[in-house]
Amino acid sequence: MKKGLMRPGHVQLRVLDLEEAVLHYRDLMGLIETHRDSQGRVYFKAWTEVDKFSVVLREADKPGMDFMAFKVLNNEVLEQLESDLIAYGCEVVKIAEGELDGCGRRVRFSAPTGHDFELFAEKEQTGKWGVSNVNPEAWPRNLKGMKATRFDHCLLYGPNVKECNALFRDVLGFDLAEQVIDPEGNLVGAFITVGMKAHDVAFIESPEPNQFHHASFFLETWEDVLRAADLISMTDTSIDIGPTRHGLTHGKTIYFFDPSGNRNEVFCGGDYHYPDHEPVTWKAEDLGKAIFYHDRVLNERFLSVLT
Amino acid sequence: MKKGLMRPGHVQLRVLDLEEAVLHYRDLMGLIETHRDSQGRVYFKAWTEVDKFSVVLREADKPGMDFMAFKVLNNEVLEQLESDLIAYGCEVVKIAEGELDGCGRRVRFSAPTGHDFELFAEKEQTGKWGVSNVNPEAWPRNLKGMKATRFDHCLLYGPNVKECNALFRDVLGFDLAEQVIDPEGNLVGAFITVGMKAHDVAFIESPEPNQFHHASFFLETWEDVLRAADLISMTDTSIDIGPTRHGLTHGKTIYFFDPSGNRNEVFCGGDYHYPDHEPVTWKAEDLGKAIFYHDRVLNERFLSVLT
Amino acid sequence: MKKGLMRPGHVQLRVLDLEEAVLHYRDLMGLIETHRDSQGRVYFKAWTEVDKFSVVLREADKPGMDFMAFKVLNNEVLEQLESDLIAYGCEVVKIAEGELDGCGRRVRFSAPTGHDFELFAEKEQTGKWGVSNVNPEAWPRNLKGMKATRFDHCLLYGPNVKECNALFRDVLGFDLAEQVIDPEGNLVGAFITVGMKAHDVAFIESPEPNQFHHASFFLETWEDVLRAADLISMTDTSIDIGPTRHGLTHGKTIYFFDPSGNRNEVFCGGDYHYPDHEPVTWKAEDLGKAIFYHDRVLNERFLSVLT
Amino acid sequence: MKKGLMRPGHVQLRVLDLEEAVLHYRDLMGLIETHRDSQGRVYFKAWTEVDKFSVVLREADKPGMDFMAFKVLNNEVLEQLESDLIAYGCEVVKIAEGELDGCGRRVRFSAPTGHDFELFAEKEQTGKWGVSNVNPEAWPRNLKGMKATRFDHCLLYGPNVKECNALFRDVLGFDLAEQVIDPEGNLVGAFITVGMKAHDVAFIESPEPNQFHHASFFLETWEDVLRAADLISMTDTSIDIGPTRHGLTHGKTIYFFDPSGNRNEVFCGGDYHYPDHEPVTWKAEDLGKAIFYHDRVLNERFLSVLT
Repeated sequence: MKKGLMRPGHVQLRVLDLEEAVLHYRDLMGLIETHRDSQGRVYFKAWTEVDKFSVVLREADKPGMDFMAFKVLNNEVLEQLESDLIAYGCEVVKIAEGELDGCGRRVRFSAPTGHDFELFAEKEQTGKWGVSNVNPEAWPRNLKGMKATRFDHCLLYGPNVKECNALFRDVLGFDLAEQVIDPEGNLVGAFITVGMKAHDVAFIESPEPNQFHHASFFLETWEDVLRAADLISMTDTSIDIGPTRHGLTHGKTIYFFDPSGNRNEVFCGGDYHYPDHEPVTWKAEDLGKAIFYHDRVLNERFLSVLT
Repeated sequence: MKKGLMRPGHVQLRVLDLEEAVLHYRDLMGLIETHRDSQGRVYFKAWTEVDKFSVVLREADKPGMDFMAFKVLNNEVLEQLESDLIAYGCEVVKIAEGELDGCGRRVRFSAPTGHDFELFAEKEQTGKWGVSNVNPEAWPRNLKGMKATRFDHCLLYGPNVKECNALFRDVLGFDLAEQVIDPEGNLVGAFITVGMKAHDVAFIESPEPNQFHHASFFLETWEDVLRAADLISMTDTSIDIGPTRHGLTHGKTIYFFDPSGNRNEVFCGGDYHYPDHEPVTWKAEDLGKAIFYHDRVLNERFLSVLT
Repeated sequence: MKKGLMRPGHVQLRVLDLEEAVLHYRDLMGLIETHRDSQGRVYFKAWTEVDKFSVVLREADKPGMDFMAFKVLNNEVLEQLESDLIAYGCEVVKIAEGELDGCGRRVRFSAPTGHDFELFAEKEQTGKWGVSNVNPEAWPRNLKGMKATRFDHCLLYGPNVKECNALFRDVLGFDLAEQVIDPEGNLVGAFITVGMKAHDVAFIESPEPNQFHHASFFLETWEDVLRAADLISMTDTSIDIGPTRHGLTHGKTIYFFDPSGNRNEVFCGGDYHYPDHEPVTWKAEDLGKAIFYHDRVLNERFLSVLT
Repeated sequence: MKKGLMRPGHVQLRVLDLEEAVLHYRDLMGLIETHRDSQGRVYFKAWTEVDKFSVVLREADKPGMDFMAFKVLNNEVLEQLESDLIAYGCEVVKIAEGELDGCGRRVRFSAPTGHDFELFAEKEQTGKWGVSNVNPEAWPRNLKGMKATRFDHCLLYGPNVKECNALFRDVLGFDLAEQVIDPEGNLVGAFITVGMKAHDVAFIESPEPNQFHHASFFLETWEDVLRAADLISMTDTSIDIGPTRHGLTHGKTIYFFDPSGNRNEVFCGGDYHYPDHEPVTWKAEDLGKAIFYHDRVLNERFLSVLT
């Protein structure tokens, strides 16, 4: 948090059929539906999150990610980062307070990978869902499905990962926690963080800009990953791969698809990071083990199915 | 245990390189090497087993299973089952006490699937490994690798599964815990048990007789399955599939290969069985989910790689 | 299962307030309410059990256990065991079919510890709750609370444990899996089993006859024990002790009380037993560690609060 | 990390018998002994830590904590915080580079609770123990005992918790993640953090200054807490309480004592914190549940045994 940027705040995803998607994100993944706005978008939060929402679904003709946003400490930080982005050469778009219900003004910029990112400082706080802030119980009793605890990160594919990493590092205060380096020494995968997590967002080098690989949600335990896998089977949800462990970050994970073809991950564990840690390096020629630690080979789907 | 047959007692496997195999079964899987005999065979036990050994490795030109043996209550039961087998029409071979060091006389017969099975009543008892029988600690502190707790079952491929099931049921007192039925109503998979376990041995219909699919060892927890998977990766051991869950028995599992190409399983959990339980039925057309509950598709390797 | 006795079949408990008890056993422990009979008794099963019920609650002025029953293979076994009990000198009471709805005739006898036990061969089979017997899912999605999987055993206090063990061993085919021996060599605790479980019922020597210590239910994992502990706190349920591990059987456990003061246990794991295993011995002078493996001291409540 | 202070860096503990203590911290807890200095102090690290050491043991006549230190981003931050501490009115002692082998200069100050704290910017980095920084395996295979993964926090007892919280908040950039408030509204417990952890250090109001309650180490899973509990029993180590869960932070935990009577904790899980989170409040009158979520009563030992 060197520059006052705290964490991933929300992600807006496009889905082909809104009600089908609601069943997926709410009843299967266990997110809490908190709001629907006048544009018809549906807002969700995970139960441990204090803000009103972290996932927004928008019905559209094509799946994928509209934008991912980060929350910053306060409005002074927001203004500073806005001017820093402009000074760095980014085009910045101001989104007025209330464009997303309950969210303050947002500062949008496009990353070198072609993805839209936003910063914001204020969002309505509704507190953790189902537990009090005084003498809180350990967890709420009426969670559904996978009981996802928080929106954790996105993995995005696009060009210019090196430049993207530099922007996030120099302007926004991110650290490079883990990197994938190709035999020529190029940075082809960047897992970057502003806190103790192994990644708050990650980029993989790929010629096509603005590709969405997955949005990831945190679970508490490896038992929860198993339960998620069981639920995927029980509900005939399309699975990608898992349960397994990643080499990169060492998280324990499972991947699957929402009804529109957007990939989701739920995972637990993962290494922690501090700013004085050298980046962990994975060699691109060992990418199989880096991605799927147990199988040590990539499935073609993981590399090529993007939205 | 309707006829006095208690449990799987041992399995003798053929390996191409004995010392390489010892590293695999002892250091990776965590079995305890207990003996080497004058033929050069190496004996192992898992730590919770009270008998002297449950796995015997024999160096040979071809991998696979020589035989699997069941322990019966006592010599009277052994004699009764021997005459019952003969009366049923089985050819029976008597193996003298001491052919396996520390094991009493064995009664060998060939099953309709082409596999050799043995019965025995006596084996040297050395007690659980690393814990006392008085005020025993929860587990021994110096276990290695996967810390396999017991030899649990084998899965075998061959013809005449229906007849094989009838023999084990009628003569030896096994129950059909789970079955796979093809669209014509044929029994093409039989998971049979003499105790509370979901299977003590299992058969899958296949034209070639006497094919070995895997020997399976029990772990305590899903965390242990993860650790096994991690160790498979760390040791560059050939993985088949997992961690995952089976539909059949609902065990949580991972498959891999010993250096000779024999498949091993380590797993935990699994449904329990009592003699008044109807067999659980899986439809052959849903075999993907039956075998790999999460992926719901079979990998070709699982069906075709046999030793 | 040397004599055809399979497993614990049911336990009938007395409770002071029936509806309060229903909330406890159904909503907190996760048993399934399956029936209420014309006497006002409420029947429950755990979800993995194939029989119609395993727990019966009867409203009464005093808590405790009316009787515990075992299911036998068939009516021939029932008749044999009935005559064996009489030959052994037990007084036997015949309970007509239908006295418990859905249950066949029962043979009741009083053990030397003063507790009533029953044998029966037939009970309506409704199958596992919430899952099919064809292509069954791993677990039902709408379980409540602790999600108890089966009624597992009872622990009972009374005199004449040695004689009681002899009766269960010689007439009913039980094995002594674990024993507590006092410094004079007397059997003061007997954990006995007819299957692979570490105990199907257990007795602790105590002067007062017919005392009920607890009824125990099986969970799948140590995570489930934690969740049970959390639920005990969330519902302000009276806890006895746990989460912890037993020395005896090495099960992982938590104890608590129903609203009438009957003690319940939910646990997972535990050692397995076969008839050729020597009994595990715990010394009475080390009873602290035998009962509570981590604390290594008994709490007074555990020894003295009985119903 | 609002002021550039990153994390707990080390703690120096006094022990009565050094070699006995080494057995405890190294062989039971699984810390790595990395160094002994010319004063006879022994240095340890936990395996995931990149710095050379995080625990220092010093033989002395009386157990307890000498000091706890935090690592800051760099020397500029160190100088800034040093002058900020002085400006705030703290007496600051400069400790020369090398007083602890491998550690840069330290800035020591005394907190209002009477405890000594230190800041430092530089320490020799030896990397995670037993795993490479390139293509790292998930964990090293030869860890001992409890396999503690990192020094996590200390809990300290003393007066002036309110003032101490203000100092750490205003000068050092800590957040109040969780607080205990007495019926008069006083802050009597402060759990404070500079990152995402529920606490990097915690204070409980108590009249006697400079009291040490415990040093805590992180484990990965609830299974690991069980294994720690088992090891405590196997090694006849003095247990305080656990396995259990805290209300405060919701961590899953066990407490025990080193041979000198210093309390240790190993735990897993625990809530996460961001700077925009309202502090979680526990009422002092519910301190039983706040500390021991399952038992909901304090044991006297937990409150009164301090070093």
